[in-house]
Amino acid sequence: MTKPLRVGLAGLGTVGASVVRLLVQDRELLARRGGRAIDLVRVASRTFKPDIDLGGASFDTDLGSLDTPDVDVVVELIGGEGDAGDVVETAIAAGRHVVTANKALLAGRGNELFAAACRNGVALGYEASVAGGIPIVNALHKGLAANRIEALAGIVNGTSNYILTAMEEDGQDFAGALAAAQRLGYAEPDPTFDVEGIDAAQKLAILAALAFGTGIDVAGVYVEGIANVDVEDIGYARELGFSIKHLGIARRREDGIEARVHPALVPESELLAKVSGVMNAVMVHGDAVGATLHMGPGAGGMPTASAVVADLVELARGTLPVPAPATAELPSLGLAGVVCPHYLKIPAIDQPGVFAEVADVLSRHRISIEAVIQRPQAIRSGEAPWVPIIILTDEVAETEVEVAVAELGNLSGVSGAIARIRVADLSAMMLGP
Amino acid sequence: MTKPLRVGLAGLGTVGASVVRLLVQDRELLARRGGRAIDLVRVASRTFKPDIDLGGASFDTDLGSLDTPDVDVVVELIGGEGDAGDVVETAIAAGRHVVTANKALLAGRGNELFAAACRNGVALGYEASVAGGIPIVNALHKGLAANRIEALAGIVNGTSNYILTAMEEDGQDFAGALAAAQRLGYAEPDPTFDVEGIDAAQKLAILAALAFGTGIDVAGVYVEGIANVDVEDIGYARELGFSIKHLGIARRREDGIEARVHPALVPESELLAKVSGVMNAVMVHGDAVGATLHMGPGAGGMPTASAVVADLVELARGTLPVPAPATAELPSLGLAGVVCPHYLKIPAIDQPGVFAEVADVLSRHRISIEAVIQRPQAIRSGEAPWVPIIILTDEVAETEVEVAVAELGNLSGVSGAIARIRVADLSAMMLGP
Repeated sequence: MTKPLRVGLAGLGTVGASVVRLLVQDRELLARRGGRAIDLVRVASRTFKPDIDLGGASFDTDLGSLDTPDVDVVVELIGGEGDAGDVVETAIAAGRHVVTANKALLAGRGNELFAAACRNGVALGYEASVAGGIPIVNALHKGLAANRIEALAGIVNGTSNYILTAMEEDGQDFAGALAAAQRLGYAEPDPTFDVEGIDAAQKLAILAALAFGTGIDVAGVYVEGIANVDVEDIGYARELGFSIKHLGIARRREDGIEARVHPALVPESELLAKVSGVMNAVMVHGDAVGATLHMGPGAGGMPTASAVVADLVELARGTLPVPAPATAELPSLGLAGVVCPHYLKIPAIDQPGVFAEVADVLSRHRISIEAVIQRPQAIRSGEAPWVPIIILTDEVAETEVEVAVAELGNLSGVSGAIARIRVADLSAMMLGP
Repeated sequence: MTKPLRVGLAGLGTVGASVVRLLVQDRELLARRGGRAIDLVRVASRTFKPDIDLGGASFDTDLGSLDTPDVDVVVELIGGEGDAGDVVETAIAAGRHVVTANKALLAGRGNELFAAACRNGVALGYEASVAGGIPIVNALHKGLAANRIEALAGIVNGTSNYILTAMEEDGQDFAGALAAAQRLGYAEPDPTFDVEGIDAAQKLAILAALAFGTGIDVAGVYVEGIANVDVEDIGYARELGFSIKHLGIARRREDGIEARVHPALVPESELLAKVSGVMNAVMVHGDAVGATLHMGPGAGGMPTASAVVADLVELARGTLPVPAPATAELPSLGLAGVVCPHYLKIPAIDQPGVFAEVADVLSRHRISIEAVIQRPQAIRSGEAPWVPIIILTDEVAETEVEVAVAELGNLSGVSGAIARIRVADLSAMMLGP
């Protein structure tokens, strides 16, 4: 048996502690799988956690203590870009391999770090940075290596999916569902990162780069969170045969890479529509295989540790890849050029002729109506009486629907903001262009 | 760039032709992914297919033509055990790598072939042998390498799933759905292999060996096909909140490996219950990650070729594993010791006291009743009038339910065969001991 793989671990939060537990408890199993021992030799964390069994590894509160020749691979589980970036950069510069769960770091500085790893011939494992325990990086790099990936779509933020599921199943409003998620520890006290879609955009940017062979471009991702999804929209969507999910969607088009994160109506017949709670799922369309779906827990200590340690086993085997330079020079398109059906909720004053006005605007923009829901509704809180007109449109270009919605907002019969949510017709998208 | 990987391909059926197409058309992409060219140099097939572009590879009707030093890897796509076995055996003995899509060969002689490959230090790729395009072998070996796999359950035979889906969605009976599947090319003229569960058992045996580190033991798998599933059962199951699926289930227990293939009631809340048509899906439970689901097309030329060529890319990279000897000596338990809820359909003569007799038998065997459906039914085709009593039991051991069913069959008030179908409570199974 060859020399052990010596691991230095930075960060002892939930994931760090779980990785330590796996490495210590499953030492024998992992050695068998990896073909050599995977030894945790050093742990560094700003705060000492006396209750964690480090299995004989030395401990230091100085993160610089991992910059030493007796460490072969640095596992970075600190999070954020500051200290984590320094630790990763130092390790790569010194010719040490790196395994990280840090999507923010990769989204911010991934291209530079991948290039440095490539130059220095060290592996950089990041399975844990996207979709927690789901081995999606591995699937894209290895299991689906014979395919040109054409599109992927997924639920990659468990917090948002938990909130939308609670709204759909229990009829809670956004604020109530968020508060419940916070009580259960599924959402942070400051939930911005998750509910505004930033976390999902980072993950999508990483997945898209891997799938399409481009650089990571998080700034090129169109981002919209779930804060404006009304529980009423979820009800109407259901009536129309859809579930509202927060999706990350990336497609390779002739003119570039479409990448967008937003709430979307997903047909109930799609498996993605059934993914509930904090689960993650990613659908991938390859030119040879067609559509595959990869589902599992998207967060949590042990699921994420499963991904981190899988990278370590692959490294021990010598099969964790050194990053290759980006091969495709494709511009990021964000939302530009996207054509899809839309859900519109138009607050119409309850007077004759309003529907005709609405229909006329849509018609002038050549937007076909696929379905309509309108029914009598009580007057609300002293304001002028209005009823929501729900319209499901046929496929329409972003630019067109934007202009049409602005015009609708100016109609005298329309009172208040128009809600619009895109429809993700996954089967068409996966087969499209 | 290092020397090209020189491929010799045996068999030019649907999958073979698709592999040729990928290798020829995507030569540049695959070379970039694999780090060196993947060159198709020789093709051997008993029958010549003049319409396939071999991209300059030589063609021979003699399968022995691949036994030559200018071939680095033999891709076996002949199927069956005879010729295919000879080709694979010869290649391994000569120190050539092998990639195969042949589940029957692996189920029959896999242990011997893996051992020979291990001795000779050659890789043996078999991603395509199970669940078509789903990279499940890769996920189990690599992406989930940090886990002790505790259980897996899946839909691994597209033909059976197509038939059950047609019965559920269109209300067709088994014979009608089978005929439709045959017309569409989803079922063979002789459908035995698929509908009797033999194909699924072979795949389950291969997956279980990989997941649990044991040898392949197809004889140790309990097998039951779908031919006895009545469309009426599907209707009753639906009323009770279940879908009937043909599942392969394998679990690591303290006393050995439980492995079974049979129709099962799957709770509608489970994603596996929603997998329809010819799709395959495998749910895997690992001790660290929890439950993951892997779904995709389970058959077809291009999806299977996607898996074959992924193995070739991994081989080009030097990361396709040489088989390791089985590490676990665990007996195959088949169905022994299985405890699960059951669906029973008891044809009861429409006279007073029958239900009491039935309940008494179940009670004496300590089988709790979870749900009952009984309603008036018309007399059928001149026979004695009878009504089906549908009973959903609580968890009960196989041995116990078997005895109870035999006793029920002897009741004077029961006329005809009792149908019983196991319930796969996947969430309990995946979390269970």
